Amino acid sequence: MPTPAPNPHLPFGDQRGAPWYGKDILSVRQFNREDLEYIFAVSHEMRTMVERVGTFDLLKGKILANLFYEPSTRTSSSFTAAMERLGGSVIPINEVKYSSVTKGETLADTVRTLECYADVVVLRHPETGSAAIAAKAARKPVINAGDGTGEHPTQALLDALTIREELGHLDGLTITMLGDLKYGRTVHSLARLSSLYKVKLNYVSPDLLRMPAEIISELKASKMEQTEHSSLDPVLAETDVLYVTRVQKERFENEADYEKVKGAYVIDKATMKSAKQRMIVMHPLPRVTEISMDFDEDPRAAYFRQMEYGLYVRMALLAMVLGKA
Amino acid sequence: MPTPAPNPHLPFGDQRGAPWYGKDILSVRQFNREDLEYIFAVSHEMRTMVERVGTFDLLKGKILANLFYEPSTRTSSSFTAAMERLGGSVIPINEVKYSSVTKGETLADTVRTLECYADVVVLRHPETGSAAIAAKAARKPVINAGDGTGEHPTQALLDALTIREELGHLDGLTITMLGDLKYGRTVHSLARLSSLYKVKLNYVSPDLLRMPAEIISELKASKMEQTEHSSLDPVLAETDVLYVTRVQKERFENEADYEKVKGAYVIDKATMKSAKQRMIVMHPLPRVTEISMDFDEDPRAAYFRQMEYGLYVRMALLAMVLGKA
Amino acid sequence: MPTPAPNPHLPFGDQRGAPWYGKDILSVRQFNREDLEYIFAVSHEMRTMVERVGTFDLLKGKILANLFYEPSTRTSSSFTAAMERLGGSVIPINEVKYSSVTKGETLADTVRTLECYADVVVLRHPETGSAAIAAKAARKPVINAGDGTGEHPTQALLDALTIREELGHLDGLTITMLGDLKYGRTVHSLARLSSLYKVKLNYVSPDLLRMPAEIISELKASKMEQTEHSSLDPVLAETDVLYVTRVQKERFENEADYEKVKGAYVIDKATMKSAKQRMIVMHPLPRVTEISMDFDEDPRAAYFRQMEYGLYVRMALLAMVLGKA
Repeated sequence: MPTPAPNPHLPFGDQRGAPWYGKDILSVRQFNREDLEYIFAVSHEMRTMVERVGTFDLLKGKILANLFYEPSTRTSSSFTAAMERLGGSVIPINEVKYSSVTKGETLADTVRTLECYADVVVLRHPETGSAAIAAKAARKPVINAGDGTGEHPTQALLDALTIREELGHLDGLTITMLGDLKYGRTVHSLARLSSLYKVKLNYVSPDLLRMPAEIISELKASKMEQTEHSSLDPVLAETDVLYVTRVQKERFENEADYEKVKGAYVIDKATMKSAKQRMIVMHPLPRVTEISMDFDEDPRAAYFRQMEYGLYVRMALLAMVLGKA
Repeated sequence: MPTPAPNPHLPFGDQRGAPWYGKDILSVRQFNREDLEYIFAVSHEMRTMVERVGTFDLLKGKILANLFYEPSTRTSSSFTAAMERLGGSVIPINEVKYSSVTKGETLADTVRTLECYADVVVLRHPETGSAAIAAKAARKPVINAGDGTGEHPTQALLDALTIREELGHLDGLTITMLGDLKYGRTVHSLARLSSLYKVKLNYVSPDLLRMPAEIISELKASKMEQTEHSSLDPVLAETDVLYVTRVQKERFENEADYEKVKGAYVIDKATMKSAKQRMIVMHPLPRVTEISMDFDEDPRAAYFRQMEYGLYVRMALLAMVLGKA
Repeated sequence: MPTPAPNPHLPFGDQRGAPWYGKDILSVRQFNREDLEYIFAVSHEMRTMVERVGTFDLLKGKILANLFYEPSTRTSSSFTAAMERLGGSVIPINEVKYSSVTKGETLADTVRTLECYADVVVLRHPETGSAAIAAKAARKPVINAGDGTGEHPTQALLDALTIREELGHLDGLTITMLGDLKYGRTVHSLARLSSLYKVKLNYVSPDLLRMPAEIISELKASKMEQTEHSSLDPVLAETDVLYVTRVQKERFENEADYEKVKGAYVIDKATMKSAKQRMIVMHPLPRVTEISMDFDEDPRAAYFRQMEYGLYVRMALLAMVLGKA
């Protein structure tokens, strides 16, 4: 939404002076530290309200077009719940593959059509850069819910919010990222967001799946402390946030290589004995075997609470871009 | 939901003293006669309210996750309508086959994620026992909307409610079940529920599709009167409730056997001449040829009204487990 | 809905005297000029309200069953948005192909089931005549959202409303239809609707895709002025409404024939130099190459606004058949 057209008919109460009104949410790179603090504050308010009253009518009468070109139950449900908990409505569009799109319509045209019906568009698309294309075409705000290997900014924000809500702050923390650090979109985005804070990052992965060199140098430029390891042992004790991702068998050329390393990247009750008592374990979910279910009831297991913070962040963003926060 | 965690932030008006608050609805076996009477009473109240005002805001602000691992338009639409008529919202999750589940996530994890967004989970799943697994994992109430050949308790409840609303009571009635009594989940559940009342059951089916012996002995143990027949003729005249199910050709080893019997299990205007004037014909739908359309306008044809009672029962259950009934 | 049963429990405020209350919307042939004027007036009111307040609670508590037997994102989303902007709720039913229908249920039974849950049914179906079958079975109003090559009345109404809102009136206008006039359901319906006004129609198409002779004679009978051309040149200058449709390669027996003509039916900035300044270009969308994107920012490009008028027409029809307009 390059230039929001002023609308003389806007209902009383729409805060057009609000700094986020009409903005697109496309990339974690668009935020500075002050932005994050604002998003955290609004998200926390959302949490308080949900816990107190469940739902409220801040976005009553607003409509979200939830446009998913590939399935993602978790993200789609989270945006739906966020809109509904704010009293708004949702147009779910999941079967894009069967629709007019297959008749050759461009993404720009699809988005320009949908914004005739809705007040805000959430887009999930398999191709990198799609969200920017949609935002350019649309007059209404577009929120990127993941576009290919590109960005998934609301995931990164919910990860950061989880740390903030669970541990109170980000400055001074040691975050250890474990597993597949090469292909994991979530760890890349969280690493980038962390660079807005004074954080130490440990990367623990099989050699094949190390954090990409360009991210390491990008963060080195902003003076972040970073270390790399092939085992969790040397860094677990100092870790405040352990961010676990899945090591997929398919990433390895032969199964033997995979079998050799896989055990090193599994978290269970026993492993966690040497970790601090006040720290958290996170995971973007779905989890398969990389975190043992026997750890689920440990208070440090934050991965399901993490899903809940996703709800609050998305409520905050919807309210912000619709001028209501 | 084994032990509902007390929530200090519960909004004023949530009746935590309500006996059904936070409960799961998993099986018809969980109900005693008093439970049924309570469900019937709340369902009747729902009917009155829908007929008078259409919709009301009893569950305003509550969110239902409608989680369907296999398609069932009828059941899914009925729960959606039930939630919407109570002023609540729905997260529809129909495409589970394409979602994170295919990445190997357990049902328990999926449910624990969804309950972060919703207040109650309705689950349809092809595997017997799934609803119990989900309920064990979830802190929020789970309603079983059919799990394999296991249970479909809301169907059994709507069947019982239909009889109650149409004929005023269950005690003293003669219920005749017709068609495929071997594989029909609905007739098994209704037979079991009937055992809470003083009812006579007639089973009319081809020899191949008789009521399973273990159900017959189970009910014999609770002193129910039961008879078996291969033709409707001897029992139609005494029948108060004729529950028709479909005899599928695929159940027979050769088509000749099917052709021989199929006519005996079709209801039409002519057949129904020898039935009482005050009785009802039920069917779980979809119906194909087993009830002729020429009977649809007969006041005894209760099968579409039966769908409507399904709405009222589901409204009642949602309100009950959310502490609002 | 042949004979709406009187309901003593109707809420206060339902205007049962309203002439459209309980009516089905099946075909453009059911409207006379007075009907159109009424629909235009209510649609305009809806536009004003949406622009002023976004959403309002005219249909609060009403439920729409949005029954789509074939995918149509655009139409389905538009009805969903229309219902939500009026404060009502939607039961989305998109996966009919997997549902009980495949077990052999008739459309009539499906509709009779759904009307147990909903207040109005919108039906999209691949077979001509389906909407009439559904309406006959249903006690509640049915709106045809396209049935095969038959009718798509709300598309025709939104086309007419677009002309009315953009140019102020229909009488006296010259409407030029361009492209595939043989198979285009939208141009057939718009041509028929136009016959209620004093309009001149120009048909411009490849020889293979001319307007069907029966429509031309039908309109001749009502004394409409009609001309046929293979090129836009002779008529563009006099055109008030240019209705563009897509010429599909598949319609031609060999690609050479297609290549020969395709350029003649593409609209771009250059072509439009010889058109009036006060006129509009319409398209039912999706558009592929038949209107160049370089024309999108021209104020005469009305095709995205046309989508918006679709919202207003559908809001108007829903309110009308539910007795609230």
